[in-house]
Amino acid sequence: MNSLRLLVPGRQIALHNSRSLSGIATSEPSHPNVSTAIPGPKSKALKAKMDPIHQTPSVKMFVDYEKSFGNYLVDADGNQLLDVYMQISSLPLGYNHPEMVKCASDPRLITSIVSRPALGSFPRHDFPAMIEKALISVAPKGLTSVQTMLCGTSANENALKTAFIHYQTRKRGGPPRLQDLESCMTQDQPGTPNLSVLSFNGAFHGRSLACLSITRSKPVHKVDIPALDWPIANFPRYMYPLEKHETHNQKQDEQCLGQVEKLIEVRKKEQRDVAAVIVEPIQSEGGDHHGSPNFFKRLQSVCKKHGVVFIVDEVQTGGGPTGSFWAHEQWNLESPPDMVIFSKKMITGGYYFKEELRVNEPYRIYNTWMGDPSKLVVLEKALEVIKRDGLVEKTKNVGENLLAGLQKLEAAYPQQVSNTRGVGTYCAFDLKDAKTRDQLIEACITEGLHIGGCGDASIRFRPALVFDQKHLDLTLEILNKAAKKVF
Amino acid sequence: MNSLRLLVPGRQIALHNSRSLSGIATSEPSHPNVSTAIPGPKSKALKAKMDPIHQTPSVKMFVDYEKSFGNYLVDADGNQLLDVYMQISSLPLGYNHPEMVKCASDPRLITSIVSRPALGSFPRHDFPAMIEKALISVAPKGLTSVQTMLCGTSANENALKTAFIHYQTRKRGGPPRLQDLESCMTQDQPGTPNLSVLSFNGAFHGRSLACLSITRSKPVHKVDIPALDWPIANFPRYMYPLEKHETHNQKQDEQCLGQVEKLIEVRKKEQRDVAAVIVEPIQSEGGDHHGSPNFFKRLQSVCKKHGVVFIVDEVQTGGGPTGSFWAHEQWNLESPPDMVIFSKKMITGGYYFKEELRVNEPYRIYNTWMGDPSKLVVLEKALEVIKRDGLVEKTKNVGENLLAGLQKLEAAYPQQVSNTRGVGTYCAFDLKDAKTRDQLIEACITEGLHIGGCGDASIRFRPALVFDQKHLDLTLEILNKAAKKVF
Repeated sequence: MNSLRLLVPGRQIALHNSRSLSGIATSEPSHPNVSTAIPGPKSKALKAKMDPIHQTPSVKMFVDYEKSFGNYLVDADGNQLLDVYMQISSLPLGYNHPEMVKCASDPRLITSIVSRPALGSFPRHDFPAMIEKALISVAPKGLTSVQTMLCGTSANENALKTAFIHYQTRKRGGPPRLQDLESCMTQDQPGTPNLSVLSFNGAFHGRSLACLSITRSKPVHKVDIPALDWPIANFPRYMYPLEKHETHNQKQDEQCLGQVEKLIEVRKKEQRDVAAVIVEPIQSEGGDHHGSPNFFKRLQSVCKKHGVVFIVDEVQTGGGPTGSFWAHEQWNLESPPDMVIFSKKMITGGYYFKEELRVNEPYRIYNTWMGDPSKLVVLEKALEVIKRDGLVEKTKNVGENLLAGLQKLEAAYPQQVSNTRGVGTYCAFDLKDAKTRDQLIEACITEGLHIGGCGDASIRFRPALVFDQKHLDLTLEILNKAAKKVF
Repeated sequence: MNSLRLLVPGRQIALHNSRSLSGIATSEPSHPNVSTAIPGPKSKALKAKMDPIHQTPSVKMFVDYEKSFGNYLVDADGNQLLDVYMQISSLPLGYNHPEMVKCASDPRLITSIVSRPALGSFPRHDFPAMIEKALISVAPKGLTSVQTMLCGTSANENALKTAFIHYQTRKRGGPPRLQDLESCMTQDQPGTPNLSVLSFNGAFHGRSLACLSITRSKPVHKVDIPALDWPIANFPRYMYPLEKHETHNQKQDEQCLGQVEKLIEVRKKEQRDVAAVIVEPIQSEGGDHHGSPNFFKRLQSVCKKHGVVFIVDEVQTGGGPTGSFWAHEQWNLESPPDMVIFSKKMITGGYYFKEELRVNEPYRIYNTWMGDPSKLVVLEKALEVIKRDGLVEKTKNVGENLLAGLQKLEAAYPQQVSNTRGVGTYCAFDLKDAKTRDQLIEACITEGLHIGGCGDASIRFRPALVFDQKHLDLTLEILNKAAKKVF
């Protein structure tokens, strides 16, 4: 840490003053430092500049990414924020990790960007090696194949397509026949089947039209957009601590699973079969709702029984934040899920799939870019660091302390804070209402802690895998200070 | 050109022997050079290596992107191919353009990759400047705002969402009401409206479920995938040369436009309004079908008359290949299209939109990444080169010679070649059947020319903007040689 400490009235701050020749920061400040309102005057001026040429209504602040480092985001006004939200949980190693920055000199990176391949037809000669070294090295147990895509949404879209193709191929006993190929051009049966995908209340799977049809977390995502008429089951809503509410929680599992099976049976009778069930290990955007290992095991059984593809959407949970590389590892399933979706911390989108889900005909799962090898170059490096430094195990340990700290907060404010929950650093708690939640987020950022909300009235923690005990100590200190102010 | 010329029996070849210290090629071979079958043994071995871990059925060959340069692709077996297909028309300046390669030392590039922003909420402090310098500098006349996305499909998905939001907002006279927000969560009206998008037979707009519903080029894209029931009109099918078939061609326009208007009226009566019409300037994947300026002018009028959003999908035509930066510039529309979609040669996906299409509420047009600023760094440089070197104008001129050369081919083989057509280097011709087309493509690649097919029996030219007269001369030489062999 190469920083200059100054004493200012009432508080010790660290001026962040360590940058490489390229202008990219090389170390973390020791402490947050907020000197303006957030957004500050520079962020506001930039928003005014951007507004006539690009939509801006969701912009919170502008960020100086060259100055940001590790767990600290530096905004356009120079405010240094301890960031436990990390670009919506998408940076595995925080900002400007020095070993990832070194990728700039890897010729594979620049060639992949300047001479970007149409990967489905003309991949790089080292693409098989890149996939093996990056994606296959962390493949969920039992899943040996992967398909890269551009983001979580395109991964989900193509996973659903794969499930439909699989369902129809099995039903026919082979590839499409002439009548399938002909009828699909007018979108008639049998070529355009009336299949559906089952998802859950509270789910978030992306924002394309089909992904919105399986997303049920917030009206703002869905309103005014036409949708596919696909079935929705309830997802468990547990009370915490779990051990105190066993009866309620088990009943939740029963009810939800009963609903899933009934919906599959009804749709089958109506000849609009459910081809796939898609589920998040933890409904994140929807409010950090967890399902029990038992719930997921039995959900998989229901899928197997009815020949339905079982898809686990690990876009937000994947890559280590829950204390295991994949959240579903903690369920001890008898056999792997049929497909596992990833993006965010995995830097590239894509999905792992079981051998029987492989699509054998060319150009069915296809598009121009099919992913981006430049992202694999960076992911390869990130995974190397994650493994070398034991960051998943560390996240598990720091996460236990985070959860304990939040439980203390709940004990101190039982009228305000409830349902403290989490695995790894993937923790959350509920406030009594949205207004209080938003006030608490606001009070935190004023003190230099950048934190995210989710669901109706929850706060979620999504730090990077480089979030250490010292960052946790600061996080809890600021959170308690903010709580004191708001409650 | 720093290459070593050798004399070998029967043919002069150039060994491509010019690479920078980083291992990235810095100059073009003077001539194609094919020494193995394509795919060659190395490509085949790589495919066998990749097959167990990643889907491979569409893979044609593996490419050595570090060795490729300009208009020449070098495959894993060392074959040097003159490439007029250019990664499905997606490389604006061919392979490893030296000025784009220099972007590797731009700190904005590496920071954007390693510390990738959630652009919708926390953009880079220089993002407004990046948008202005890259995307706004080439905005279609009359369109002053842009929204970045990741690819053509995500751009189209979000353009459709924007059209739906616009249509409903205008209908209501304001943002969603409580009943809209509530009903959309169960996908009931009025929150989930029964709106549709009109597209055309032969169209290609991407491969997500919604984009497939407006795509009607080939069964392989659509079969087994459930679809939205949206209306389809015919797109003109002209005969060439245009001046010889005026009556037929005008009748095509009439019939198609009549169908569009009728479909809009019928859907309105059925209370499932058409909110948007989406159309390609040239149906590319579908077989390089052109529409006349008059067709598009009148299509825009029909849209205006019925309050339907007019979307021009320039994913393949945009960025200069037709001899104008945007193909629709050649229509002389009275007012700009409501939205123009781009991707491929534009390096980033996205869409330009009219001011009244702006979505004012936050988180409606949103996702985690919302594009990728690293792509803007590279696009900025590519556009600088395109403007400085007058590459669009040059493409127009070289394109005229390409078209003349193809017309000569048609004149030489009137039984085999028909409907030679094109603007800029965006040229195509038809063969008598798919088999002959595929044989011709095969014969070309054997001689070192990498060319693409489209539609049922067409060949399309999609060279980069650095395709010069010398490359054209070689192209026509090889094409004529291949034709002699096949016909």
